[in-house]
Amino acid sequence: MTDVRRLPGGHAELVSHRYDGEGRTMAKFMDVHDGFVGVTAEQLNAAHEADLKIEGEEGVHFERAWLDPEAGKVFCLSTGPSKEAVMRVHERAGHPTTEVYELTTEV
Amino acid sequence: MTDVRRLPGGHAELVSHRYDGEGRTMAKFMDVHDGFVGVTAEQLNAAHEADLKIEGEEGVHFERAWLDPEAGKVFCLSTGPSKEAVMRVHERAGHPTTEVYELTTEV
Repeated sequence: MTDVRRLPGGHAELVSHRYDGEGRTMAKFMDVHDGFVGVTAEQLNAAHEADLKIEGEEGVHFERAWLDPEAGKVFCLSTGPSKEAVMRVHERAGHPTTEVYELTTEV
Repeated sequence: MTDVRRLPGGHAELVSHRYDGEGRTMAKFMDVHDGFVGVTAEQLNAAHEADLKIEGEEGVHFERAWLDPEAGKVFCLSTGPSKEAVMRVHERAGHPTTEVYELTTEV
């Protein structure tokens, strides 16, 4: 379920009706990274651990990450308050991406 | 763990060391669809059900699908014998894609 939240400046944002333990609205995200050609399982794990170490400061949790080392693609599934929060964690952890999708439906 | 399998014609394919109940090699895949702008949860569910109905004929199983209706993106997580098998199921179910990634690592 979703509703429309008014943002500063009058912009509207479609947000999911989920809340964390402190009553903040939470949504689910998939983000995509390119350029990870030849990355090993150990390197992916290290990158994921770097996210987990700081994610709490942004109210984000990275649930899972998947790697295709031939195409150089990484997909990360997370929950958090906004796309921007997800991007900030990845950027601070050293692997920025701007390709983040809000997942309003999961089957 | 992966190894290199020889294909007809001498091409090599990197494959994962997982097997289904009948001893066939299985791998994990993420595929991506574009153009699903404005799609509803019900429509996503119907598309997913169409995949589930025929996936067994290709030895594929679609585990999960996620939708961002604003960007029009759908991500599907599956297991199966090959990218081609995943593509065949989606094509026969009416929502073809050629963007399929083999996931050799998951954290």
